[in-house]
Parts: sequence; structure tokens; C-alpha cells
Amino acid sequence: MEPLPEVTDPRVIDGRKIAQAIEANVKNEVGRFIKEHGIKPALATILVGEHPPSKLYVKLKHWACKRVDIISEDHKFPQEAKQEEIIELIETLNRRPEIHGILVQLPLPKHIDEREVMMRIAPQKDVDGFNPLNMGKMLIGREGFVPCTPKGIVRALEEFNIDPQGMEVVVVGHSNVVGKPAAIMLLNRNATVKVCHVFTKDLKSHTKEADILIVATGVRGLIKGDMVKEGVIVFDVGITWFDEKVYGDVDFDDVLPKVKLISPVPGGVGPMTIAILMEHTLMAARLQVGD
Amino acid sequence: MEPLPEVTDPRVIDGRKIAQAIEANVKNEVGRFIKEHGIKPALATILVGEHPPSKLYVKLKHWACKRVDIISEDHKFPQEAKQEEIIELIETLNRRPEIHGILVQLPLPKHIDEREVMMRIAPQKDVDGFNPLNMGKMLIGREGFVPCTPKGIVRALEEFNIDPQGMEVVVVGHSNVVGKPAAIMLLNRNATVKVCHVFTKDLKSHTKEADILIVATGVRGLIKGDMVKEGVIVFDVGITWFDEKVYGDVDFDDVLPKVKLISPVPGGVGPMTIAILMEHTLMAARLQVGD
Repeated sequence: MEPLPEVTDPRVIDGRKIAQAIEANVKNEVGRFIKEHGIKPALATILVGEHPPSKLYVKLKHWACKRVDIISEDHKFPQEAKQEEIIELIETLNRRPEIHGILVQLPLPKHIDEREVMMRIAPQKDVDGFNPLNMGKMLIGREGFVPCTPKGIVRALEEFNIDPQGMEVVVVGHSNVVGKPAAIMLLNRNATVKVCHVFTKDLKSHTKEADILIVATGVRGLIKGDMVKEGVIVFDVGITWFDEKVYGDVDFDDVLPKVKLISPVPGGVGPMTIAILMEHTLMAARLQVGD
Repeated sequence: MEPLPEVTDPRVIDGRKIAQAIEANVKNEVGRFIKEHGIKPALATILVGEHPPSKLYVKLKHWACKRVDIISEDHKFPQEAKQEEIIELIETLNRRPEIHGILVQLPLPKHIDEREVMMRIAPQKDVDGFNPLNMGKMLIGREGFVPCTPKGIVRALEEFNIDPQGMEVVVVGHSNVVGKPAAIMLLNRNATVKVCHVFTKDLKSHTKEADILIVATGVRGLIKGDMVKEGVIVFDVGITWFDEKVYGDVDFDDVLPKVKLISPVPGGVGPMTIAILMEHTLMAARLQVGD
């Protein structure tokens, strides 16, 4: 990947800068943790198949571990791996006390039931927040391990001193990994929240209402300038690979003139998501040593 | 309580009639269950304090058990009961194999952490669907034990052959017991869903958009005729006791001329909620005998 140009436009959220600040703090805390407990936090990743973006994301996560002094363990399965093999590995990792966090890179091949796999990760090692127990705690307002991407969005809002209470949030996409948890986390912060998706009629009439627009559909360039109102804050969570480049769900150049803030793709929520994962791995390590 | 007049207006959802149909089916299935397994399904209820409406709701649940041939066990604590005492009873009930369902009547006194108590009910006995594991499964679309009131609403829609997919649902109130789960369950059915609450600005501008309006705030008469559009479907989940009578969140007479359908208070979602509870108790019994 070529390095991204520096962000100079004050409307553009520099996800890498926010991520660096989070990681600097994690690194610091990891140092203290090692001193106190004589062990390093450790993350195990599981990758199934040869999907190039997934391979890249896992690699980025290992690099982040290295930056913050977290041990990372790399587990790989071929595309045709059986569900039981993956679950067996998860159960081994659940039992190993020196592993604190377990991350299964999504999406999994179609013959595997993702929800079944996510349910098997021990809740206290579930750094991605996809175990239904952690999802349910989030739903009732006890946020512990929550999905990293929406948590990154919440963190970015805090960074800009934006309190979502009473604001109109529109989430486009109702996936279990981004759309639904983002909606819940903003609802927990007393925003008025609407969730739209592929079955929503006249999408534009909804997106135009948003004070904060979170888009996570995987449809490249779905959101155009005429679909948002002046002064909107946009989080683009979409990622489409085309010709070895990544594109978001938002037509960035078209939308930019109207925004108060926008997270670009790449360099927006991606790095923040990884930084939160580091935070969660440290949190998992603390939980397991009884801190 | 005086008996309710018979429902003759086709716009008014007769919750008691829907409940009777559900209960008739449950009774039938309970008969089969008893024949096959030689035991009856059993529900234990826990009531803390002397709040008259709560006492009434618990009584109504025991009556329903009687109607469908489910055993019910009545546990009561004084208002000043300690959280640990309640949790201790829950753990005893969790262990007793002849108890299949456990229901803690909400709200609990303020000195008790409701979420902590709900977390202690074994997920397979959690007939009210408030354990975070069951909440989380619902969030990811694996609905098992879900909160009874939103499930009753979904059932009523089915009863009238209304598919919420693509419809605009507005939920007013973001409580853990009704608002949030109702939003999730309608989202799981591909409705476009908005959640409003006490921090929402200009509530009327939102409620007027609704094809389906679900109101669960506890504010008597909050929703007036000018706050809804022609042809709306309204579910009134609010209950306010005043002068020994109950009132909903919807100003019924004012809203009625504009609705396609409306669930009244009393006689709407209340009886449906109890009927679903019976269904869940049977479901729990089946789960525990390994059916």
C-alpha cells in the first residue's frame, strides 16, 4: 500500500492520528501491565482462506500488536476448513491462560455458520465483541467488549467533543458487526437513531435527516452529495476493493463540500478499529489476571 | 377489574382474542407435553414489594398458567429485600429441574440492580428474555427467548398479515424491556426503524413518519391525533394507573379516526404479553427435557 497523504482539511477525520493516540496510551498501559504481572497481553487471530483483504487486515492487526508490545499468534485454516476444526481451535485457545484475546477474521467461508463460531469464543476473550453475551450486555447499556468499529466511531465523536445526545443519527446497513451495534451504542448515548438498509424505501429522504450519518453497506459510492444535509458528520465504514485500491460507501468528493466532518476511506475508521482492538486485548488481559 | 366491553371496531386490535388463540394452542401443546413426558411445565414468579400493579400482573400470570395447565409457583419478598436474597432464590430455582421458567416481576425496588438480577436467571429458564445472552442472540437475529411484549406485537402483525419489511417503524421509548428489543425485532424483519425517547427533539416530526408506531414511555396520553399520519398502525404499550384505572401512552379517542389499526389499553398488548409468556414457559420446558 502506498502511504496516504497527510490530512490537512479540518473537515476530514484523520483516523490514523486518532488511532496513534489510542495506541500510544495502550502501549503505555501495556508497559505497566507487564511490570505488574510479569507477562505480556496476547492476542490470537484466526484466518480462514485466502481472501486477500482479510489477509491484509490480519497482517495489520499483527503489526499493531507489535507496535503496542502485545504478543500475537497467527492461526490459519484453508478455505475448505470444517466448522468443527475452527471451533476446536477456539476451545483450545479459550483454555490457554496465556492467550487473552481471540479474534476470528470475518467474513468466514459460506459453509461456516459465523454466528455459531462467534458464540464459542469465551466472553472474557471476545475482543471483537461479537459473542451474543457481550452483544446483549451492550444492548442493555453495559458496554464491555463491544464491536470495535462502532466503538471507534464513538471515540472519534468524543475526540471532537460531539455529544450525540438528542442528535439525529442515521445508520445505513443493519449488519450484526457494524450497523446494529452502532445503532445501539448511539442509542445508549441518547441519540435519536434510525436504521436504514437494503429494504428501506427512498433512502435519500432518510439520509438527508441525519446530523450524524454512519454508512456500512459495502456499496461503493452509495452516498452522494444530494443525499446529505449541510453540516452533517459522516462516518464511512464501507470498504470495496477495486483494482488494488479501496473505496468507501460515500462519494467523498461529492459529499465533502456539505460536511462538518467526514471519515475518509482509507485512513478513517479502519485504523481506529484496529486501535480499539488493541485496547480490548489489554482489557481482556487485565480481566483475566483479575485486575 | 370490571370486564372490558366487547371489541366491535375493526380498527381496534383485540389483544384478548389474540391471546386466547395463543393460549388455546399452548394448552393443546401442554397436553401433549404432559402425555409424552409425564410432567407439567412449571413457572416460578418472583415479586418484590407491595406495588399494587405488580401484584396484579403477577396474579394475572398465575391465572394464565392455570388456564393452560402450567404449574405456577409464587415467590414473594418484602420491599426491603436484599439483592443477594433474590439472587440466592434465583440460583435455587436455576438448579431445580422441575422448574422450567423463572420470571422476576419488574420494576424492582431502586436499591436493587435489575440488570444484575436478570443476568443471574439461567438463559434456558429466562422466559422473559431479559438475560443478556438471550438479548444478544436476538440482536444477531437468533430469536429464542425474547421479551414477551415486542414478541406479542410481532405476533399481532402476523395475525393481520402485515409484513413490516420496508415499512417505517417508529418506536417511542428506549427501555431495555420494550423499546430496544422492539426496535431490534422489527429490524430483524427488515423494517426501517427509528427509536425516539425523552431526548428526541420535536417528537411529532418523527411520529408523523410512522407506518407502525410503538409507544412505550409511561407518559399518559403522550401521542395525540395530530402526531400520526393517516393509516398508521399503533401499538400502545404504556400503562399509567390513575384512580384505579389504567391509561395508555396514546390519546385513544383523538388518534382513532386516523388509524388503520390500534391496540388499546387495557385489552391490547397486555394480554398478548401474558400469552407469549405461557408459550415461552412451554418452550423452556421442552428445551429442558431435550425435546
